[in-house]
Formats: sequence, C-alpha cells, structure tokens
Amino acid sequence: MIHPTAIVEDGAIVGDDVSIGPFSIVHANVTLGRGSVVDSHCVLGHTEPGADPVPLIIGAEARIRSHSVLYGGSRIGPGLETGHRVTIREDSEIGDGFRVGTVSDLQGSCSIGNYVRFHSNVHIGKCSAIGDYVWIFPYVVLTNDPHPPSDGFLAGVTVEDFAVIATMSIVLPGLTVGRDSLVGAHSMVNRDVRPGSVVAGTPAVDRGDASAIQLRDGSGPAYPWRRHFRRGYPPEVVEMWMAEFADEPT
Amino acid sequence: MIHPTAIVEDGAIVGDDVSIGPFSIVHANVTLGRGSVVDSHCVLGHTEPGADPVPLIIGAEARIRSHSVLYGGSRIGPGLETGHRVTIREDSEIGDGFRVGTVSDLQGSCSIGNYVRFHSNVHIGKCSAIGDYVWIFPYVVLTNDPHPPSDGFLAGVTVEDFAVIATMSIVLPGLTVGRDSLVGAHSMVNRDVRPGSVVAGTPAVDRGDASAIQLRDGSGPAYPWRRHFRRGYPPEVVEMWMAEFADEPT
Amino acid sequence: MIHPTAIVEDGAIVGDDVSIGPFSIVHANVTLGRGSVVDSHCVLGHTEPGADPVPLIIGAEARIRSHSVLYGGSRIGPGLETGHRVTIREDSEIGDGFRVGTVSDLQGSCSIGNYVRFHSNVHIGKCSAIGDYVWIFPYVVLTNDPHPPSDGFLAGVTVEDFAVIATMSIVLPGLTVGRDSLVGAHSMVNRDVRPGSVVAGTPAVDRGDASAIQLRDGSGPAYPWRRHFRRGYPPEVVEMWMAEFADEPT
Repeated sequence: MIHPTAIVEDGAIVGDDVSIGPFSIVHANVTLGRGSVVDSHCVLGHTEPGADPVPLIIGAEARIRSHSVLYGGSRIGPGLETGHRVTIREDSEIGDGFRVGTVSDLQGSCSIGNYVRFHSNVHIGKCSAIGDYVWIFPYVVLTNDPHPPSDGFLAGVTVEDFAVIATMSIVLPGLTVGRDSLVGAHSMVNRDVRPGSVVAGTPAVDRGDASAIQLRDGSGPAYPWRRHFRRGYPPEVVEMWMAEFADEPT
Repeated sequence: MIHPTAIVEDGAIVGDDVSIGPFSIVHANVTLGRGSVVDSHCVLGHTEPGADPVPLIIGAEARIRSHSVLYGGSRIGPGLETGHRVTIREDSEIGDGFRVGTVSDLQGSCSIGNYVRFHSNVHIGKCSAIGDYVWIFPYVVLTNDPHPPSDGFLAGVTVEDFAVIATMSIVLPGLTVGRDSLVGAHSMVNRDVRPGSVVAGTPAVDRGDASAIQLRDGSGPAYPWRRHFRRGYPPEVVEMWMAEFADEPT
Repeated sequence: MIHPTAIVEDGAIVGDDVSIGPFSIVHANVTLGRGSVVDSHCVLGHTEPGADPVPLIIGAEARIRSHSVLYGGSRIGPGLETGHRVTIREDSEIGDGFRVGTVSDLQGSCSIGNYVRFHSNVHIGKCSAIGDYVWIFPYVVLTNDPHPPSDGFLAGVTVEDFAVIATMSIVLPGLTVGRDSLVGAHSMVNRDVRPGSVVAGTPAVDRGDASAIQLRDGSGPAYPWRRHFRRGYPPEVVEMWMAEFADEPT
C-alpha cells in the first residue's frame, strides 16, 4: 500500500495497514501509526538543512491529505485528520482526534488538547496553548508578538476548553479566550474573553453570555455547543455530554 | 503531451491535445476536455478512502495550475482557469469560463454560474449559490453555519449576478448579496445586501447606490462594472453589455 | 545533491553546492546561485503555455521550501528564504535577504527592497512597491484596483522603509504607508499613513506617533523597531542601527 513513487526512508517506522500515496516522502525520523492513510505529494518528518532530525510521532488511523508538510519534533495523538496543504511545524504536542483543515498552518511550539477542530486556513502562532474540544474557523489568526517585530517577548494565545473562534477573527498576543466562550466573526480581540461570554467587533466587546443565543429551530440555547452538537466525537465523550445536559427539556 | 512521470489511470477520459505535467495524477473517474493544460503536482478526481469514485467532468480548454486538487463529483464547464494550489471539492455545479485564483478553496455542494471570477485565497463555504458574472476578491469568506458548530442548519450564502465582494470581507450564513451590488473591502456583512447598493464596514451598512461611485478618470459610473469592464468575456456577452449601455455618453 | 526524481532542464544554470529535492522542477530559464537549497515539489521558472520563457535569476544561498512556485521573469537577490507553498510571479525585482513565509503570494510586477520580511499568508497585489527593511505580518493584503473590477487603473500600494503592517490588515489601492510607521492588526487603511505614526481600526485612524509605544520590559520605545530588534540582519546593517541609536540610554 506504499505507492512505488513514494519515498519512505530507511528507519521510518510505519505501522500495519498504512497507505502512502504517490510522490510523498516519509523521512527516517517518522513513526506513523497503524491504519494511517497519507495522500500524494506530502512530506512527513521535514528537517531543516544542517539540523539533526528529531522524531515525528503520529498515532494510529491518521488521515493526511495531499501536499501536507509535517515537521520532525512533534507528537500527535491517534485519529489525526488533515485537509490538503496543511503545515504542522516542530515541537508541538497534539492530542487525540485532532482535525485541521486545508492550508492551515501551525507554526510550532504549540500545545493542542484532545478533539480540537480547526477549519481551513487557520494560522496558529508559535507558543499558542489550545485546550480540549476547541473550535477555530477559517482565516482566524492567533498572534504572539506584542510589538512586531520584537525579540524574547513571544506571548502565545491561550484558548480554553470548548471555546469557539469564528471566521476571520484575530486574538492579540498573550490573551486568554475563556472556556465555553464565543468570539464572533471578523473580530479583533484585544482583551481576555470571559468564560461563557460572547464577544464581537473591532475591537471585540462583551455582548453578554453565549448561552443567551438560541438555535434557530427553537430547540434551546446554541451554547455551550456540546448541548446539541456531538457529531464525530467518541462515544464516551458523547455520553459525558449527554449526562451533563440530562436535566434539560430537549 | 502527458509527462512520463504523470499518472493517468485507466478509465480516465482525456480529450485531444491535452497536456498533463510532471508528478500529476488523473484518476479513473475524470473526464478532461480537449485542449486542456494541467500543470505539475495536481490531483484530479480525488476520492476519499473507502468511498466509491464518482465522475469529475471538466470541459474543454481547461487551464489548471500546479498543486491543485479537484475532487470527484463535480461538473465544470469549458474554459476553467485555476491558479496554483486550488481546491474544488465534491458535488459542485460550475458554469462556463470560471476563473479561480491561487490557494482558493471551494468546499463543495456549491452552484456557480457562468463567467464567475474568484481571485486568490477565496473561501467558499459548502452550499453557497453564486450567480453569473460574479467577482470575489482575495481573502473573502462565504460562511454557512449560523451557530458554529451546529448540525443540520447549514445555510449557504447567495451571491446574485454581477455582484462584487471586495478583499477580506465575510458574509454571514444564509444571506443574499444582491445583483449589481458591491461589498466594500474588510467588511462584515450581517444582513442582506440590497441589489445595486454599496455596503461597507463591520458590520456593513448601506452607503447608497453603487452607481454613484465614479471612475477616477471621469468617464462615468464605476458600477455596474460591465458598463466599462469587459476584458476576458466572450464576444456575445460583450455585445449584450454594449447594447445595454448604448445610450450612455461614453 | 540533485535528487534523482528532480527534473532539471538543460539550460538551467545551477551554482556549486546546490541541493534540489525530490519531485522538484527547475526549468531551463532559471539561474540558481551557489549554495542554494530547494526542497521537494517546487517549480522554478514557471512559464505559461504558449509564452516565451524569460529568465528567473535567484542569488546565492537561497532557501526555498517545499511546494513553492517561482515564475520566470523575476530577479531575486542573494539570501532568499521562502516558507512552503510560496508563489512569486513574474516581473518582480527583489533585493537581498528577502524572507517570505508559507503560502504567501506575490502577484508580480512588484519591487521589493533589501531585507524585507513577509510572514505567512501575505498577499501582495501587482504593482506594489516595497522599500527596505519592511515587515508585513500574516493575512495582510496590499490591493491595487480602485474600482474592482476595472482596467487600466491599477494603482499599487507603496510601503516605505522600516514600515510594519500587522496581521489581517489591508491597504487600499494607491496609498503610501510611510517610513517607520505601524499599521495595527485587523485594520483597513483608506488614506496615506504618516511616516512614524501608528494607525489602527476600520477605517484606520491616526493614533499618534509609533515611538510613544513602549516595550513591555520597560527598556524604551518599541518603534522604530530597529532600536531593539536586529536579529537576522547583516553585521554592517546592525552597526549602522547601533550608531543611529548610540545616544540612547539602552
């Protein structure tokens, strides 16, 4: 299941039932879990010229779409799913069930929790810290330099569990987007986002509690989203969320 | 004219005078019209693992630039022109003379009319409906989820004929951008855009009729743009537009 | 150091100690300086079908990362460094020590000075003119069409020496961003930016002198940034900047 044009270097550890597409490169520093499917034109385990290769460890059942580049030096849990042309740079710790869309760019030295979802064309600055079950939508940028360009002051953004950042918003360096909060589309966040709140605008202002936003079908609050949206999460997670909202009239 | 390193699977239907560049892949489910030119490192007819391939039908004289990925399941008229690293996903119906710039990402299940122009780095959410002769400029996002993340509520954006959406603007889910209207740059559209109007800002507000905007050379109104801009359209279309504005002093 | 799967056409002039990665293409119209390192899946010297190839001249010690596409017709000084999937189109004049991040797109007919730094996902419209030591951050777009779509009126943006444009800002056509100025993040610039000023907002308004912004560590003004940030510049440049600020108490 390794295409004859693919280059898999000696030393690469490739699990059972792995498929690697045409014109893809798997360097010697890569461990790729069983059942993974890598499309064409990818590069796994990229190392800069002159640097010593360091391990890239990818868990089982990864799905890596074409033209993606993953650097050596990161550890990624099972169930990774990427779009096309994704970049994941060095020194990141990424949990289970991570999904990241086409053209998204993780700049390295990030921590990413479990079951995080990034849509297409997301840019995650170095030193960002992302919790569990976070959602980030297209053209969002997490910045890290308070006075660009500066040196020695890199201040990554923190995004807490279940937070949602909508399309084309940016978060300024060093800020925290609180648990269960929502950043509205096309916003510029220049202060911490209160847990459970919704913020929007340029600069983003607090618009109250996200739980006040109602679903269009009248079935109740849209946030926390795990109240009604559970597609693609593992059964034990879904059960936990069902229990959390068991008292609700849904 | 098929490069020896290209992979053209048995079953692919490739017209006369087609050129396919190095390291490109044309899957068995592809029909590629005569006179088409495909650059290097492309993937035509992408199918997800485990799914049944469905046809990708591309009309004559297509020009597909390098590193582009087109999924199975769409039908594209003649005269397609893509930039580099374009993604066109499944289940889209695309008219004649479609041009789409580098890194643009069509997420699938869209309808796109005739002679539509997307510039670089445009993101078209699932279920968008685009009319004829529409222009969308770089870093525009058409969204579709009213309460991200939600399920079963996908509400694509409608963009009517001749509408223009300028750089780095977003349109919220389910809205309509009216015929002959203009969305100014860096805008956040959160209500329907009146036909023939210009809107701008975050959120975008109605600034009057687009026809009040004058060309800098003093030759008359800048909108509707077909009054003065006709480059690259077929002769019968240009004639129609000339007739429409024949009474004007231009 | 040319990988056996790479395609280097007869006529290409490749300097000593050049490395070219797997599945990359170097066309006959390319001159690539000594010591350059080109990753996999790149295209150097792209020419449109039917056009005559024109030279692409790249100086010594270039570092071109994977999946990048450089057109024929540009001249680039020594010390180029690109991210992945960069596009540099035709007819650009680019100085020494240019760095440009992943997915950035230079649309052609631009002039770019010495030691310019573009971060990831920057879009530089045709006919832009960039001075020396400029910084442009992710998701910035320099536009060029006053009345999109129009014809014969292309008006590129001018960015003067040492100017900084922060994340997700756009500059409208024909404007000048002055020397030593700072455009704040997520801004829409619709008038010239005064040299040495800071502007921000949609539309961007003058917020005073950039030199009033203090570094967080209390060591003095953050701008002009060359007062404190000198990493990666050549020794003779650093010496010049040290002399310029020699009277300061730093």
